[in-house]
Amino acid sequence: MIHPLVLDEEVRPLFARSRQLPDRYLGVRQASEAFCEPLAPEDCVIQSMPDTSPIRWHLAHATWFFETFVLARANPDYRPFNPAFEILFNSYYHTVGEQFPRPQRGLLSRPTMADVFEYRQEVDRRMVRLLTEGESLPPELLPVVELGLHHEQQHQELMYTDVKHLFACNPLNPAYRGSDGVPDGATAPPLTWLHFREGLREIGHDGDGFAFDNENPRHRRFVEAFHLAGRPATNGEFLEFIDDGGYRRPELWLSLGWQTVQSEVWHAPIYWRRGDNGGWSEFTLSGLKPLNLEAPVCHLSYFEADAFARWSGARLPSEAEWEVAAQRVLAEDGEIRGNFAESGRLHPAPAQSSASNAPAQMFGDVWEWTSSPYSPYSGYRPPDGALGEYNGKFMCNQYVLRGGSCVTPESHIRETYRNFFPPEARWQLTGVRLARDA
Amino acid sequence: MIHPLVLDEEVRPLFARSRQLPDRYLGVRQASEAFCEPLAPEDCVIQSMPDTSPIRWHLAHATWFFETFVLARANPDYRPFNPAFEILFNSYYHTVGEQFPRPQRGLLSRPTMADVFEYRQEVDRRMVRLLTEGESLPPELLPVVELGLHHEQQHQELMYTDVKHLFACNPLNPAYRGSDGVPDGATAPPLTWLHFREGLREIGHDGDGFAFDNENPRHRRFVEAFHLAGRPATNGEFLEFIDDGGYRRPELWLSLGWQTVQSEVWHAPIYWRRGDNGGWSEFTLSGLKPLNLEAPVCHLSYFEADAFARWSGARLPSEAEWEVAAQRVLAEDGEIRGNFAESGRLHPAPAQSSASNAPAQMFGDVWEWTSSPYSPYSGYRPPDGALGEYNGKFMCNQYVLRGGSCVTPESHIRETYRNFFPPEARWQLTGVRLARDA
Amino acid sequence: MIHPLVLDEEVRPLFARSRQLPDRYLGVRQASEAFCEPLAPEDCVIQSMPDTSPIRWHLAHATWFFETFVLARANPDYRPFNPAFEILFNSYYHTVGEQFPRPQRGLLSRPTMADVFEYRQEVDRRMVRLLTEGESLPPELLPVVELGLHHEQQHQELMYTDVKHLFACNPLNPAYRGSDGVPDGATAPPLTWLHFREGLREIGHDGDGFAFDNENPRHRRFVEAFHLAGRPATNGEFLEFIDDGGYRRPELWLSLGWQTVQSEVWHAPIYWRRGDNGGWSEFTLSGLKPLNLEAPVCHLSYFEADAFARWSGARLPSEAEWEVAAQRVLAEDGEIRGNFAESGRLHPAPAQSSASNAPAQMFGDVWEWTSSPYSPYSGYRPPDGALGEYNGKFMCNQYVLRGGSCVTPESHIRETYRNFFPPEARWQLTGVRLARDA
Amino acid sequence: MIHPLVLDEEVRPLFARSRQLPDRYLGVRQASEAFCEPLAPEDCVIQSMPDTSPIRWHLAHATWFFETFVLARANPDYRPFNPAFEILFNSYYHTVGEQFPRPQRGLLSRPTMADVFEYRQEVDRRMVRLLTEGESLPPELLPVVELGLHHEQQHQELMYTDVKHLFACNPLNPAYRGSDGVPDGATAPPLTWLHFREGLREIGHDGDGFAFDNENPRHRRFVEAFHLAGRPATNGEFLEFIDDGGYRRPELWLSLGWQTVQSEVWHAPIYWRRGDNGGWSEFTLSGLKPLNLEAPVCHLSYFEADAFARWSGARLPSEAEWEVAAQRVLAEDGEIRGNFAESGRLHPAPAQSSASNAPAQMFGDVWEWTSSPYSPYSGYRPPDGALGEYNGKFMCNQYVLRGGSCVTPESHIRETYRNFFPPEARWQLTGVRLARDA
Repeated sequence: MIHPLVLDEEVRPLFARSRQLPDRYLGVRQASEAFCEPLAPEDCVIQSMPDTSPIRWHLAHATWFFETFVLARANPDYRPFNPAFEILFNSYYHTVGEQFPRPQRGLLSRPTMADVFEYRQEVDRRMVRLLTEGESLPPELLPVVELGLHHEQQHQELMYTDVKHLFACNPLNPAYRGSDGVPDGATAPPLTWLHFREGLREIGHDGDGFAFDNENPRHRRFVEAFHLAGRPATNGEFLEFIDDGGYRRPELWLSLGWQTVQSEVWHAPIYWRRGDNGGWSEFTLSGLKPLNLEAPVCHLSYFEADAFARWSGARLPSEAEWEVAAQRVLAEDGEIRGNFAESGRLHPAPAQSSASNAPAQMFGDVWEWTSSPYSPYSGYRPPDGALGEYNGKFMCNQYVLRGGSCVTPESHIRETYRNFFPPEARWQLTGVRLARDA
Repeated sequence: MIHPLVLDEEVRPLFARSRQLPDRYLGVRQASEAFCEPLAPEDCVIQSMPDTSPIRWHLAHATWFFETFVLARANPDYRPFNPAFEILFNSYYHTVGEQFPRPQRGLLSRPTMADVFEYRQEVDRRMVRLLTEGESLPPELLPVVELGLHHEQQHQELMYTDVKHLFACNPLNPAYRGSDGVPDGATAPPLTWLHFREGLREIGHDGDGFAFDNENPRHRRFVEAFHLAGRPATNGEFLEFIDDGGYRRPELWLSLGWQTVQSEVWHAPIYWRRGDNGGWSEFTLSGLKPLNLEAPVCHLSYFEADAFARWSGARLPSEAEWEVAAQRVLAEDGEIRGNFAESGRLHPAPAQSSASNAPAQMFGDVWEWTSSPYSPYSGYRPPDGALGEYNGKFMCNQYVLRGGSCVTPESHIRETYRNFFPPEARWQLTGVRLARDA
Repeated sequence: MIHPLVLDEEVRPLFARSRQLPDRYLGVRQASEAFCEPLAPEDCVIQSMPDTSPIRWHLAHATWFFETFVLARANPDYRPFNPAFEILFNSYYHTVGEQFPRPQRGLLSRPTMADVFEYRQEVDRRMVRLLTEGESLPPELLPVVELGLHHEQQHQELMYTDVKHLFACNPLNPAYRGSDGVPDGATAPPLTWLHFREGLREIGHDGDGFAFDNENPRHRRFVEAFHLAGRPATNGEFLEFIDDGGYRRPELWLSLGWQTVQSEVWHAPIYWRRGDNGGWSEFTLSGLKPLNLEAPVCHLSYFEADAFARWSGARLPSEAEWEVAAQRVLAEDGEIRGNFAESGRLHPAPAQSSASNAPAQMFGDVWEWTSSPYSPYSGYRPPDGALGEYNGKFMCNQYVLRGGSCVTPESHIRETYRNFFPPEARWQLTGVRLARDA
Repeated sequence: MIHPLVLDEEVRPLFARSRQLPDRYLGVRQASEAFCEPLAPEDCVIQSMPDTSPIRWHLAHATWFFETFVLARANPDYRPFNPAFEILFNSYYHTVGEQFPRPQRGLLSRPTMADVFEYRQEVDRRMVRLLTEGESLPPELLPVVELGLHHEQQHQELMYTDVKHLFACNPLNPAYRGSDGVPDGATAPPLTWLHFREGLREIGHDGDGFAFDNENPRHRRFVEAFHLAGRPATNGEFLEFIDDGGYRRPELWLSLGWQTVQSEVWHAPIYWRRGDNGGWSEFTLSGLKPLNLEAPVCHLSYFEADAFARWSGARLPSEAEWEVAAQRVLAEDGEIRGNFAESGRLHPAPAQSSASNAPAQMFGDVWEWTSSPYSPYSGYRPPDGALGEYNGKFMCNQYVLRGGSCVTPESHIRETYRNFFPPEARWQLTGVRLARDA
């Protein structure tokens, strides 16, 4: 079931002439299309819940972003590929104009995948021309191209999680790929606690290289002394929580969390399935697998992560604590290392042992919930215009996650990166690392 | 965008050996597949509202019907094509077993269209073998095969209406086919009233040839004298109702109808669209067209039909009145005539003038709402077993429609045929013919 | 907890002068107020579900009816008691004007009960003056007064059922009155079947005395031969249905009924409660009582009555069958007899044995569901104007009930009386009498 | 309409013997009952939305708190006043046991107000005995009594806001009291900005005197330099926001806020009403009044406060900023001053001019939204046992408010007091004070 559509030949020659940015542009764009290879057109138009989007929508919307914010701005006489797409594939930019209602994205069978690939090719053709004929790209649009690439990478991660959710709704348990690439037999090291001293710290992005607006400005925080777990919690540890009645004990939960447990009838992480014999399996992008007790627990909501931490006699780290710890990791490693999308893994793998004083597996494998509500940093200002809608307006009733997952593109993550989801969201690759007051 | 899958070559030779039933079997089955030719796979998996089903589901369910009620019963050792399909494609037969929830049919991207065509081919192969090797088909299953064919024809009509609803959700206004086959420039004759005398009448099926259980038994009804309109009401006549404030005047509506008008913000039939200049268009299977004032109004709910009748100083006919009138038509014509699916028309066409004393256009073009709640006929008994769930259990909060539409297969309709929908349903080709007390 | 407010002294002297109608007027009005004696003000403002209304609303609405349709019409210069009441206490008469939304009737703590009693007294004063000074009452309003009295009687029955529903929501199990007046130890006679021959029958009101518009016109129906049960089904019989898995067997239910059983988690009649020891109690207007197996089962929805009938190998009678049987009862008894509101019983009592060929307990004790959707009789015409909204517009998705209950005022019922409720309604005193094809 | 029930004579003599705590106990308890004087019983049982509770419920729940956490703990043989109340009046303490569902509190007409006053008297009798016979009160329960008093004060404020919401649903515009006690003709001073320097600050309660657990521990925060408005925003200023299209401009709103504006059709603060002539009134506890442009705007949701701040080119203060500013006020005034419940004002009054360098009207009149999500302070630990459910479990998807309102009891507020509500809540007396980066 191989998708027949690939980037056409007309675009490839441009490659030769391209400098760094066009190369990176095409690399990111092709990664989105490569993602679709194992999929049938039928897999690409369904919206399995309002939080997810059809794959076809992701592909078109990321393209719309370049068309709207780069091509149309670079050329006052720009004629859109299809004027109807301006509304259909606008996600939430009121400043740009009207949007097709988000919960109805799955009502559209047209444009088909073939149509959308045509749309992508045409926009790619125009973009590559713009990027390779440097004089025509106004300099103020260069950071927008950069933003567009990071934007498309965000949607690449969503395509993994959205297809996973779609397939998980299907009693046939379809697999995106036969193997998830996770090595057999690996075991996680025992839980250790690393100490961090109190002090006035700096967190946030310092302006060097790309970052989203919400990572700015770098600013001071007073952080009390704390302990941080040496690795994320495992499926085995989470199973103890379940076996100890974790989902039936209101005293472990936030009030809203307990309401959700009751109304949604939660009794395990979203993709865990209990077999007739009482054993647990987990639905993955490689289909239904026996639960790997050594791997980091994932697809937890904030509510579950928080309840598990309370049950553990611990708490979630704040995002300042997490970032301070990540600074120690980077000081040691010199660069970000971890299992990311490029590793070909579709599922988190057990942590590896380490004698270091820095926490393991801070980057990749699973996003880690922090206790921090997603709020603007002191001194934060969203950009002017439509791109000011990118992040700031979502700073309400969400919590910050850090570190990236095994389906995050490696070039996309930073130690200052702030991901965010509402506390009930479970379809992302979200895990938990414990913290404690020192 | 031609669908690449056709009935494969292995089945065709069976044709030669077949007698009437296998021929008809293959004819009905191929009509379902022919319907799909203009569609893309993307069009076939979406469920645009809980009342509709994805095309792929219709194709598989009609196949499941033959597999479950014929193949599996004919052979005690029968091994299903895919055991998971027993649940996935069971519509509402509790006696057979569990069902995948109806409102979630659109969450399934797999089996793909290709998979379903394979399923159909395999079941066709087995069915044709059973039908052509007569000895192996238990005689009590012959009426079930017959029922299965009529069942598939019902789903063929639903495929038209469900794809129409799906396409109507799409701002791109996709067309199923370029032309709707309705002749240009035809005009409807003026409205006339035909008189019928009072008397003790017989309605219902007399047992000759196929009929659904709900058409039985033939029984006596006392029918008062009445007048029936010579043709269905037209778009032009319905537009007068709108222009007279029809959707804003509660006194014209049933109480539940008025609630629906308010909560659903109805102001015209579901597929009518008012242009910026105030003119009306209608979304059809051939895309958006200027409203044809001469054609029968269609896609009315019972509520709208009833309110229009009240506004007209008339009422809807009862189903007994309708059937008495149909008897007069048949006495004159000798057989059922009208625009049905075989005519290639995708949309109702204007009535033709006639000097006859029988009402025109009783069959085909648009289903006609009657004032009769869908109730069991006096003496009705549903069949034993699962097939007893086919009709009887739906006899509540629905109304009877009569006569068939332009997308009803011709061989499917009868003067005793009882179609039924809830009073708020608007996505079927449902129109209105007026009646009056004499 | 005696309500301190009674009809004041100023009105009483009018009695002396009054002829029959004023007497009856005051009798009906005082019955509403007498109903309130055991209630606290707190009991009278809550709306326990959208189908019910606060007692205070019933008292005010029935008064509004006289004010709006009699007083204001009799006097062109009429000044309303409180102009805001025109909207607040209009139930559903669009022709009169706007209505305060029905589901929000329980949001109003004012006017208080004291205010409403004042409103009643003032309207009573004006009505009695109008009725006793005959010259001022236009003759066309006389039938409206009559209608207003029957209207208030309907609301009296609703006050019983609405207070019962309210109290049943309360874990304290409050009692409206200590004793329900049902004799102890009575047993129901065994179930017998009475035979009725086929024939062209007349049903409906013949114009003699008061009847609602929906009972008109008297008209012919062809009725096949049938058998009717000699008495309503008992709690003991219904308990057998439950014990036989009645609420867990989809094949016994209409499709909508089964959906309701699932979504509402029905497993017994609404006011039955299973004790820790497995025994059954029933919440009544006298509080929680052990279930009386001999008494007629009541508070069944149409869905439950229909499923019970199917399980019994029988069916519900049509309303024509019921009325034909009632004609036989009246031919024998000469008048309507039964346990009605005047009997002081708050709960249905077991049927009494009878050697008669007429069915027992056709009137009073429990309303009996018929299989007939609530539709207009052949030739029915609603009155012109606002009072045309009284009945006709509700003829959709409801079923007819016959015979009255133990809280129906005796002077209110007739053999042609058509009560009606949606098939899921359970808070009325609704039972079931079986029928069979002969 | 004076409520006939007052604290009975048996309790009064205890007063004489009482030391400080019994006095304060009775003072707080009587304040709750005094609140009810202008109300009818009908006003006290309705729940006008799930966020509010019937007055009767507040009265009983605050009593249940003393019974459950003091009386029953002080005496192992304690027999509850009514065992059913343990469930009925438990708000959300899972550790204590089951709770009657919150959204159904308005379904209970019993216990009546009279019953609840009896309950209060009996608990008061027992409490006063326990408090005045000191030996019997275990010392660890003393802080629980203190907590119970502050708890009842919280419910006193809720009784004001809940009755206001109930009356606002009523088109009769009932008034709780004729006059709102706000002086006529006062004007607010012009908006000024006060400067605060950056620094490492301490906020939170230092352990001296009563505080809720959520105000602890006192801890360090680095606070950047900022400006704070000299007084809360006025109705006049908010009206400019409306007139400038504030409710129609998505770019001014958080994404969730804009969704709420659309779905709830907000176009002004909840109790503002636009007259036919375009002028604005405001519904108050004294009925409908012309909008006072000089008074602080109140009944804003966080969403509205945030959008108004953005439109103003400012932002909301963080709770650390607010508390730092409050420290300056206290340093100047020596104590908390403002319009509180004891002032007899039912509505916020205009700020008074001041030459001080401290912000005016920080305490009383209106609660002030901060930008801070309601999160645990660094080092926060909820108490063990049921009282640990008081605050901690609500630290999710809410925002902190500071300073108290005109219906907050004066003895209840502190500069460290953290009130909290979800961002969409509008029925509290919630206003906005602007802040800016320095």
